[in-house]
Amino acid sequence: MASINHHYLKLKAGYLFPEIARRVNAFAEQNATVQGIPPLIRLGIGDVTEPLPAACRAAMTQAVAELGKRESFHGYGPEQGYGWLREKIAQHDFQARGCDIDASEIFVSDGSKCDTGNILDIFGRDNVIAVTDPVYPVYVDTNVMAGHTGEVNDRGEYDGLVYLPIDAQNNFTAQIPNRKVDLIYLCFPNNPTGATASREHLQAWVNYALSHEAVILFDAAYEAFITDPSLPHSIYEIDGARNCAIEFRSFSKNAGFTGTRCALTVVPKSLMARAGDGSLVSLWSLWNRRQATKFNGVSYIVQRGAEAVYSDEGQRQVKDLVAFYMQNAGIIAQSLTAAGLDVYGGVNAPYVWLKTPNTMSSWDFFDWLLRECHVVGTPGSGFGAAGEGYFRLSAFNSRANVDEAMQRIVARL
Amino acid sequence: MASINHHYLKLKAGYLFPEIARRVNAFAEQNATVQGIPPLIRLGIGDVTEPLPAACRAAMTQAVAELGKRESFHGYGPEQGYGWLREKIAQHDFQARGCDIDASEIFVSDGSKCDTGNILDIFGRDNVIAVTDPVYPVYVDTNVMAGHTGEVNDRGEYDGLVYLPIDAQNNFTAQIPNRKVDLIYLCFPNNPTGATASREHLQAWVNYALSHEAVILFDAAYEAFITDPSLPHSIYEIDGARNCAIEFRSFSKNAGFTGTRCALTVVPKSLMARAGDGSLVSLWSLWNRRQATKFNGVSYIVQRGAEAVYSDEGQRQVKDLVAFYMQNAGIIAQSLTAAGLDVYGGVNAPYVWLKTPNTMSSWDFFDWLLRECHVVGTPGSGFGAAGEGYFRLSAFNSRANVDEAMQRIVARL
Repeated sequence: MASINHHYLKLKAGYLFPEIARRVNAFAEQNATVQGIPPLIRLGIGDVTEPLPAACRAAMTQAVAELGKRESFHGYGPEQGYGWLREKIAQHDFQARGCDIDASEIFVSDGSKCDTGNILDIFGRDNVIAVTDPVYPVYVDTNVMAGHTGEVNDRGEYDGLVYLPIDAQNNFTAQIPNRKVDLIYLCFPNNPTGATASREHLQAWVNYALSHEAVILFDAAYEAFITDPSLPHSIYEIDGARNCAIEFRSFSKNAGFTGTRCALTVVPKSLMARAGDGSLVSLWSLWNRRQATKFNGVSYIVQRGAEAVYSDEGQRQVKDLVAFYMQNAGIIAQSLTAAGLDVYGGVNAPYVWLKTPNTMSSWDFFDWLLRECHVVGTPGSGFGAAGEGYFRLSAFNSRANVDEAMQRIVARL
Repeated sequence: MASINHHYLKLKAGYLFPEIARRVNAFAEQNATVQGIPPLIRLGIGDVTEPLPAACRAAMTQAVAELGKRESFHGYGPEQGYGWLREKIAQHDFQARGCDIDASEIFVSDGSKCDTGNILDIFGRDNVIAVTDPVYPVYVDTNVMAGHTGEVNDRGEYDGLVYLPIDAQNNFTAQIPNRKVDLIYLCFPNNPTGATASREHLQAWVNYALSHEAVILFDAAYEAFITDPSLPHSIYEIDGARNCAIEFRSFSKNAGFTGTRCALTVVPKSLMARAGDGSLVSLWSLWNRRQATKFNGVSYIVQRGAEAVYSDEGQRQVKDLVAFYMQNAGIIAQSLTAAGLDVYGGVNAPYVWLKTPNTMSSWDFFDWLLRECHVVGTPGSGFGAAGEGYFRLSAFNSRANVDEAMQRIVARL
C-alpha cells in the first residue's frame, strides 16, 4: 500500500497567504449584496501592480515572434539558463558591485519560492536549521515537509528548528547564535519587517558560518529597494561569503515579474559541505545535478524579458518602478507614524512593519482592518510566534489606493 | 558543519542527455577545423524543431501587451494554474474522452520533468518503487536523490528499485508484477521504445493497483501521437483509475512547448494513500499544499499560449504539427526496416526504437553513428540495463534532415 510523506501532516492548517485569501473571500461573499461598500484595497501579499517595463515587453514580443520561425525557434534551453542571461546577471548584479561571481555560478529559475524550497534537496537531513522569527513562511514549511523538524507547539514553533527572534529591541537583526547551527536563512532587506543588515552584521554572520562550516541561505529578493548606499546588496560583498553562502534573487519585485516568473540562485563553485565520510563535496555540483534532473529551464520568452532588465532602457524603467513603490512605502510609514503607531521598515524595503494598536493580536488587527477599512494586510503572527502583535503592509499598489487606504486607516484608528 | 544529501553520491556519472551533449561537443571540437564535414543532424534528445503554432504566438503576444497596462496586468496567479486554462484542459483532454476529471484536479506546471520528480515529495520513504527497464531516466534518478534506493550495481541498476524488463519478447509492455509494489511508473506511448498500451493492458495495471493499494504514476506526454483509435489516451479512460493513478501531461511535444514550458499533472480527489497510523490521506490535498508552498504558478504569458492550443485554430495547428512529426517517424521506421534493422515504435509515438546491428553495444552504435554519419541518437542502455543493444531515434526534426540522416545511415549500414 502506498504511503504518504507523513511530515506534511505536521504542517499547520494553511500556508499564510491562502488563509488570508480565504478570509478575504468570506468577507467579500458576506458583503456581496451590501450597497455602497468601498472596494477592497490589498496591501497584503507582496504582489506588484504596475505595468511590466516596456523594455521587457518588447523583448518578449520579439521572442514570441522568433519562435514562429524554424531558423530562430528555441526548444529545450540549458537547465541552468541561457549564457547570455547568466552573463548579464553576473556583470550587473555582482561583478559591478565587486562580487567575485561568475556566470557559471548563476542558475536561472522560475522563482525564488521554488528555489528556497528546492535547495533543501541537496542537503542532509541531520542539519540544524536556523530561521529568524518572524520569517518568510516558505523557509519553515519546506523544512517541515522535508522532515527536518518535529511537531509544532501552541506558539506555532516546530521542534528541532532554531528560532532567532527579531524585534524592535534588537533592531530586527538576529543575534549571532551561541550554539552551533548548520543552515541559516537570512533575508535582507527583510521580509516581513523591512529591516536591513549593515556590512558589519553580515560580516559577523559570514565569520560565524566559516568558523562553524555552516551555510547561509541568503534571500536578496528585495535588494533593489535599498536606498542607503552604505548597505550591501549581495552577501558576496562580504569577505569570505563565497565559501559559506548561497544567494537567491528574483525579478519579481524589481521588474514586476510576479506573474511572468523569473529568478536566480547563486551557488559559488568554492562552496562545500560534508559527506557522511567527512569529505568535502561541491554544493554547486549537487545543485547543478538537481537542476539538470528535476528542472527544464525557464521559458525562452521569459528569459529574453529578464535580459531586457539589463538594457539601458530596462535599467531606467526598473529604477522608476522601484522609486514609485518606495514613494508608496514612504506614504504608508509617514501616515501611520503621524497617526501614532510604532512603524518600522519602509525605507530600504517595500514593506512597512507596525506594532498593532492597543496590543491587539495580529489576526484581530487583520480582521479589524478588513471589516472597518476594507484593507487587506498580513498578520505578523503569520510569519512566526515573535511576529505576534505586529502587522505587515506592502507598498505594492497604485498611488491612489495607497492614499485611500491610509485615509481610511488613519480616520478609524 | 553542513552536510549534503548523500544519496546524490549514488547517482551515476551523468544524466543521460548531458552525457550525450558532452560527447557531441567533444566530437564537434575535434572536427572544428576539418573541411567539408557534413553538418550534425540531431535525432537524439526529444526536442521539437518546428515553429510554435500561430495561435499560441498570437495569444502570448497579446498577453505580453496586457501586462503593459495597469488594468490588465497580472501578478501572482494561482499556484495551480488559472481556472480558464484548467477548465479547457479538463474539457478537451479528459471529459471529451469520457474521463471523469474536474478542472480542480488539474495542476498546471512548467514541465513534466519537474512534476514527475517533485511528485515524490508527497510520498513516504518506505514505498517500493517499480519502473520499466528501459525507462525515462528522470524517474530513476529522482528516486535515487530522494533516498528511495540503495547503491547502483555494474548493470546500472539501483538496489531497492523493482525493474520490469520490456523488450521485443513481451512487445515492450511489462508483465504485471507477482510481488507487491507501491508506486509504479508507466509511460504510454512509451519513451523510449515507442510502444503503446492497449485498454486491456492498462486495465490489468489498474486492477493490480487497486487490489494492492498501489499508485500508478502515468506519463502521457506523448498521447497526442497516438494514431490507432482503439488505444486509450489517458489512464482515466480505464475503470477505477481515479482511485489509483496520477497522470502527467505536457504541451512540450504536441504544441512544441519544449522551450516555452507548460505541462500539467492530474491528481484526482478520490485518490488516497496511507499515513503511518493506517488512515487514508488525500494525495490531492498533499500535492495542492506542495504546489502552494514550493511553486508560484506558470507565467501568465505561457498559460495564455497553452490555452490557445484548445482554440479551433490551435487544435488544427497542433494536429498538423503532430502529423508532420509522425510522417518523419514513418520515414525513419521504413528506411531502417528496409535496410534490414529490427525496428519498433514510430507508429503511435515520435520515437523509433531499433536493435543495434551486429550486436553492437548501444554506446558503440552511438559513437559509430556520430563518427560515420554525423547523426546524434540516444543509446538504449542510457535508459536502463535492458535497453542495452537498442537505440532510440527521435522524429523531431525537419523533413530535409530526417531524409538526409536516413540516406547517410542506410548508405553506411
